[in-house]
Amino acid sequence: MGQPQQTDGPEAEKPPIRVGMVGYAFMGAAHSQGWRTVGRVFDLPRRPVLAAICGRDGAAVRAAADRYGWAAAETDWRALIARDDVDLVDICTPGDSHAEIALAALAAGKHVLCEKPLANTVAEATAMTRAAEEAETRGQVAMVGFNYRRLPATALARRMVAEGRIGTLRHVRVSYLQDWLVDPQSPLTWRLRKEQAGSGSLGDLGAHIVDLAQYLAGERLAGVSALTETFVRQRPLSGGPGSGLAGEPAAGTGEVTVDDAALFTGRFAGGALASFEATRYATGRKNSLRIELNGERGSLAFDLERLNELAYHDGTEPGTHAGFRRILVTEPDHPYLEAWWPPGHGLGYEHTFVHQARDLVHGIAEGRAPEPSFADGLQVQRVLAAVEESAEKNSVYTPIAG
Amino acid sequence: MGQPQQTDGPEAEKPPIRVGMVGYAFMGAAHSQGWRTVGRVFDLPRRPVLAAICGRDGAAVRAAADRYGWAAAETDWRALIARDDVDLVDICTPGDSHAEIALAALAAGKHVLCEKPLANTVAEATAMTRAAEEAETRGQVAMVGFNYRRLPATALARRMVAEGRIGTLRHVRVSYLQDWLVDPQSPLTWRLRKEQAGSGSLGDLGAHIVDLAQYLAGERLAGVSALTETFVRQRPLSGGPGSGLAGEPAAGTGEVTVDDAALFTGRFAGGALASFEATRYATGRKNSLRIELNGERGSLAFDLERLNELAYHDGTEPGTHAGFRRILVTEPDHPYLEAWWPPGHGLGYEHTFVHQARDLVHGIAEGRAPEPSFADGLQVQRVLAAVEESAEKNSVYTPIAG
Amino acid sequence: MGQPQQTDGPEAEKPPIRVGMVGYAFMGAAHSQGWRTVGRVFDLPRRPVLAAICGRDGAAVRAAADRYGWAAAETDWRALIARDDVDLVDICTPGDSHAEIALAALAAGKHVLCEKPLANTVAEATAMTRAAEEAETRGQVAMVGFNYRRLPATALARRMVAEGRIGTLRHVRVSYLQDWLVDPQSPLTWRLRKEQAGSGSLGDLGAHIVDLAQYLAGERLAGVSALTETFVRQRPLSGGPGSGLAGEPAAGTGEVTVDDAALFTGRFAGGALASFEATRYATGRKNSLRIELNGERGSLAFDLERLNELAYHDGTEPGTHAGFRRILVTEPDHPYLEAWWPPGHGLGYEHTFVHQARDLVHGIAEGRAPEPSFADGLQVQRVLAAVEESAEKNSVYTPIAG
Amino acid sequence: MGQPQQTDGPEAEKPPIRVGMVGYAFMGAAHSQGWRTVGRVFDLPRRPVLAAICGRDGAAVRAAADRYGWAAAETDWRALIARDDVDLVDICTPGDSHAEIALAALAAGKHVLCEKPLANTVAEATAMTRAAEEAETRGQVAMVGFNYRRLPATALARRMVAEGRIGTLRHVRVSYLQDWLVDPQSPLTWRLRKEQAGSGSLGDLGAHIVDLAQYLAGERLAGVSALTETFVRQRPLSGGPGSGLAGEPAAGTGEVTVDDAALFTGRFAGGALASFEATRYATGRKNSLRIELNGERGSLAFDLERLNELAYHDGTEPGTHAGFRRILVTEPDHPYLEAWWPPGHGLGYEHTFVHQARDLVHGIAEGRAPEPSFADGLQVQRVLAAVEESAEKNSVYTPIAG
Repeated sequence: MGQPQQTDGPEAEKPPIRVGMVGYAFMGAAHSQGWRTVGRVFDLPRRPVLAAICGRDGAAVRAAADRYGWAAAETDWRALIARDDVDLVDICTPGDSHAEIALAALAAGKHVLCEKPLANTVAEATAMTRAAEEAETRGQVAMVGFNYRRLPATALARRMVAEGRIGTLRHVRVSYLQDWLVDPQSPLTWRLRKEQAGSGSLGDLGAHIVDLAQYLAGERLAGVSALTETFVRQRPLSGGPGSGLAGEPAAGTGEVTVDDAALFTGRFAGGALASFEATRYATGRKNSLRIELNGERGSLAFDLERLNELAYHDGTEPGTHAGFRRILVTEPDHPYLEAWWPPGHGLGYEHTFVHQARDLVHGIAEGRAPEPSFADGLQVQRVLAAVEESAEKNSVYTPIAG
Repeated sequence: MGQPQQTDGPEAEKPPIRVGMVGYAFMGAAHSQGWRTVGRVFDLPRRPVLAAICGRDGAAVRAAADRYGWAAAETDWRALIARDDVDLVDICTPGDSHAEIALAALAAGKHVLCEKPLANTVAEATAMTRAAEEAETRGQVAMVGFNYRRLPATALARRMVAEGRIGTLRHVRVSYLQDWLVDPQSPLTWRLRKEQAGSGSLGDLGAHIVDLAQYLAGERLAGVSALTETFVRQRPLSGGPGSGLAGEPAAGTGEVTVDDAALFTGRFAGGALASFEATRYATGRKNSLRIELNGERGSLAFDLERLNELAYHDGTEPGTHAGFRRILVTEPDHPYLEAWWPPGHGLGYEHTFVHQARDLVHGIAEGRAPEPSFADGLQVQRVLAAVEESAEKNSVYTPIAG
Repeated sequence: MGQPQQTDGPEAEKPPIRVGMVGYAFMGAAHSQGWRTVGRVFDLPRRPVLAAICGRDGAAVRAAADRYGWAAAETDWRALIARDDVDLVDICTPGDSHAEIALAALAAGKHVLCEKPLANTVAEATAMTRAAEEAETRGQVAMVGFNYRRLPATALARRMVAEGRIGTLRHVRVSYLQDWLVDPQSPLTWRLRKEQAGSGSLGDLGAHIVDLAQYLAGERLAGVSALTETFVRQRPLSGGPGSGLAGEPAAGTGEVTVDDAALFTGRFAGGALASFEATRYATGRKNSLRIELNGERGSLAFDLERLNELAYHDGTEPGTHAGFRRILVTEPDHPYLEAWWPPGHGLGYEHTFVHQARDLVHGIAEGRAPEPSFADGLQVQRVLAAVEESAEKNSVYTPIAG
Repeated sequence: MGQPQQTDGPEAEKPPIRVGMVGYAFMGAAHSQGWRTVGRVFDLPRRPVLAAICGRDGAAVRAAADRYGWAAAETDWRALIARDDVDLVDICTPGDSHAEIALAALAAGKHVLCEKPLANTVAEATAMTRAAEEAETRGQVAMVGFNYRRLPATALARRMVAEGRIGTLRHVRVSYLQDWLVDPQSPLTWRLRKEQAGSGSLGDLGAHIVDLAQYLAGERLAGVSALTETFVRQRPLSGGPGSGLAGEPAAGTGEVTVDDAALFTGRFAGGALASFEATRYATGRKNSLRIELNGERGSLAFDLERLNELAYHDGTEPGTHAGFRRILVTEPDHPYLEAWWPPGHGLGYEHTFVHQARDLVHGIAEGRAPEPSFADGLQVQRVLAAVEESAEKNSVYTPIAG
């Protein structure tokens, strides 16, 4: 009979990255899953540790810590930042608090991962970017959480564009469609109030697709022309704290102060045309992020509702046998797939957070600025600001500042 | 043994509608197929007769007449109009000649079917509409050939919208993607010259999707904001008459004077947002016309590359079992299907011309103005003009005149 | 002003093929469409003429002649065959009359096109094949109407298999699913009676898929193992002649004497495995004929409900970018497409009959035996007989005779 | 500033279920992910603990323990079973060792989770089932790891069948297609040797689809008729231990002693017909498990490569608007979804192991026999044995014993 063998191996010997996370709602749960899983699947140079989680409601944050596996809980994000056993601050709060927390964390010498959108305003994002660049000189890294870059299919698409497989870019069309606001009786929440959310579909969904489009294209938008709309301007108040509304209003109705939908067209720096749509009123579309790129040599298309697939048309093939092919992005040589399951065994949404954690850990270990940087996040913010400006100015074409 | 029975039945006794068609290229072949087939499949009140076909090249038009089954051939459209044995003039020429031919035909007391776009300018379309309305008082009918209204799937979609199945409209998104100009060495043709084609993707593809979107929505666009682009400004001259270019230029290169692609957003009169894209540079997309309508109660989606299908999401169903369903629009109670094959035996592109002929024959027989009228065609032209105006004015939101 | 030009061109000068058709129901309408259209679309060496149509009910057949465009009508197929102005007899009746009509037509020196299945029994099919082979020595041709070979997508698939693109064949899986018998109250018709239909799903749907599978594979089945079932054994009598039932029974219920569904597996001569399913009880599947071939170098897949598409996986490509591609089979160099519409403008079900007519006209003009020959039809009949034998013998593997 | 709050909450107070896992290859990694994640996502009555992992190679198993998060490592499964700190033995080894380990674990008073197939022979499976039933009387539970029951989409399908939504079942068709053996130069591994794997595609893939089909149908197969084939009978030896081959043969070639593909048809107890296909030679199909059920009132279809979707046709709807709908199985009231992400944010393959762990923990906590039981696994084994018997006996229909 064999001797019992206590494990005391390499993982324990790796230097840790001790994470402190602010926020424990949807994003908090997703990031927790990422941090908890990443070292169990990927070979990492450092060992992530779920050190502490922070939220305002003490009982709730302790329950979250317990559930998600964080070693400690805090009710004040300043206390979290002050902890010696936190190396990295992971910000999963609504956009209105991103700047303050991130600036403090960077000032305290921490690495920072900040959920998207980077901030609610260009001014905030600018300050954050400046702070991140200064911190970088001190060896700190800062990254913004555009997690849809971390899908095998989108990462493969990026690689194929970079390889020249679609050639000179002509068109990018992208939409992000949800439907959870279709019902006019759906209650007001913090996501529908400008002071907390910054904007509506635009900042929530539009930020994702602007980043993804620019990432895949490998170039930036030069200008936009936009329409936005708020279809339902008054919504019932839920009367409770569940809404996340500041001030927790009583019953009645409250005003929606953000956009319900945003449509915009634009030009990329290289001359390609682009169209964008972000809405929460596309009945039947739950989380439908679709992007297609058409180039002189080929095309690529992706649909988040079928996230393990990438469609590719090779325009250099004889037309007789050409067609959009469905690449099942589950092969060992596909991005991130070296560590997962055999071909055809697909991944899910949450894996983006595992991959994000993986890439960030490598960035920290190697002392290089990971992408997307705060500067990337700032640039997305500038696009969103141009969208809002164009929408206010009768859709006039508005160059992206910067 | 039975007696041989010579057929001498009801068809011969029906009053004829004697068609004279101008043009014998792609649209001429398609319309011929429509006229030849319609009375063999549908019960019609009148009997279409392929009386005469017209084209400038005598040998070519005689060959076309022979091939497509027209009884006579003409080389001058004025002669065609002058024929006593022509009741209906079917105009299948490029857009720059639509107005002149249609006005003459209406003046000569003929019914008119005019291919889309109705004309190359709003001024021409206005004159044609006025003439059509006057002619209508004399019992003539005039119709414009937006054939994509005549698919079982689009006609069903229209019926479902009219029945209130998708409720208050929130979004319409529509694109018409082709790729035949992707190669910069693809030669210049009449379709790329403003003086003949009027515009590029906009008039060719954009006219279709503007009409289809307004038809399905059951309401009109109020205004648009647009970007257009000509990606490749010089193209080789083919040096021969096949190009259809006026003046038949010699070898070398010639300038493309129309748009390659047009993107526009807009607002419907009822408040819904819309996005449109028309391009000939979407590598791998051959004839991809996609339209989706999202309403408060449901959604509909259609793709011309799968033209026997309509996707429908019923938003009033419990979410547990809801989803976009693929209606195979081949049931006997679907539009136009009473006359075709059993369920599941799909139709093709050309059937739109059979159905168009069917609806026009009924309109003539019943003395009612068929849809889409010249006024409908004029309104589409106004949308296209607003698109061009917006594109010239830095994408500023431009109301639709009229 | 040009001179009116009466067409008197090449078509009229071509030697005619004068068709006499027996039957005027579903297949009669489809074949009529084929004969009427083929010479208007394709360049043919000979000119098809719709000479005479035959059916037992005089008024009905005259109406059909009038509707479908046949010059004369007969009520006795012997009279049709006796006509001097008929060169080709096109048999569109139920299977129990195929042998008698075809044998008489061949004996009378006519060319013959016979709907599938070739006959209701192997004995009949054998006699027909022998007669066809004898007639061939006299310059007559005989063909069986497996129209699904005539789709651009299936013809392309055949071409690709012949080119070696999928390599050594390993698997063929094919199903033909309909649902029109799901309702137990759906009435008895001639298709459910063995004496007229020969068999149920097996002869109607199974014959199609056996032929298509062998055609695409380029080899024949060696043996089969089968299960068949009749789910609903008694059905209401409709009490009228519409059922097509011999003897026109009165009201009440009648026995279903054919299979409702047939499943069989088999081995191809070359060692590949195959599975087949034919049923009229697949709720929601209207005309779903799907076939997939897997070979050592690649795979092909086709779905009749999306008949303009062919899926192709090139197994020799690097796995990183490989995937099933959707070839839109609408390019000019695709089979049959030289004569139709631009890329992306799809065809429909009925085009198979146009293409069948085209291929048959060429066969007659060139004096070569067209495929599928009566011998091919006989071999399919032998497969169906083996299926029935296996089903009766406890599914034991049953070699295909011949 | 808030006080730091050490988490010491309810999770720690829950009684643990201490897991000991045998095997650390593909299934070991997947089960580890399940055990590690389940308590972080779901509310569980008991707390899973990754107590010890076992494998023959000491260094490798210690590395696996370290990577996957197991507290201890063993090199002898008997030692694992003997540990006091193991409550549940999770068997992830090849099928030839299942019986011995499971019998020992049950005898030692442990709960058991055993990967599929339950065993390599009916005799082994019978002994295991008997032992499990005896152990059940002592409060132990035993479950077999048919993880595809644990997808939201398949669990929803089961629920809908049980609700009567598809009515009397007529057809079940199911295939499980992979392609990793297509290349004849792909080396011999333990999965291709009968003494270790028991069978080839049949036990590996066929076991899954037999279980899933019976689970969804809610009834059992009565008999089968089968064909099996080994396309490539000699394969290169890899010459190393990576193959997992017993005896680690040297270079050269070795014989494949299992089936490459298995096709079978069958009848369900209730009269429905079924077809099954399992193969590793379907070029381009990576992990394509497709199942469709057709009933008198509706149909359901599922495809593992799009595992967040379920297709449903409601046959009771008017045909005009009916069609297969694509249910995105990501709503909060869908099975297992109460604990995951918002609608549209899909799950992946590995979630089946999280859900399996969840259901097993509930079963243990509630003292009820979880499904699928060893008896269910035995019955699947009997189906596989009948398949093999039928294949040996010329495909004759073979009733399922038991």
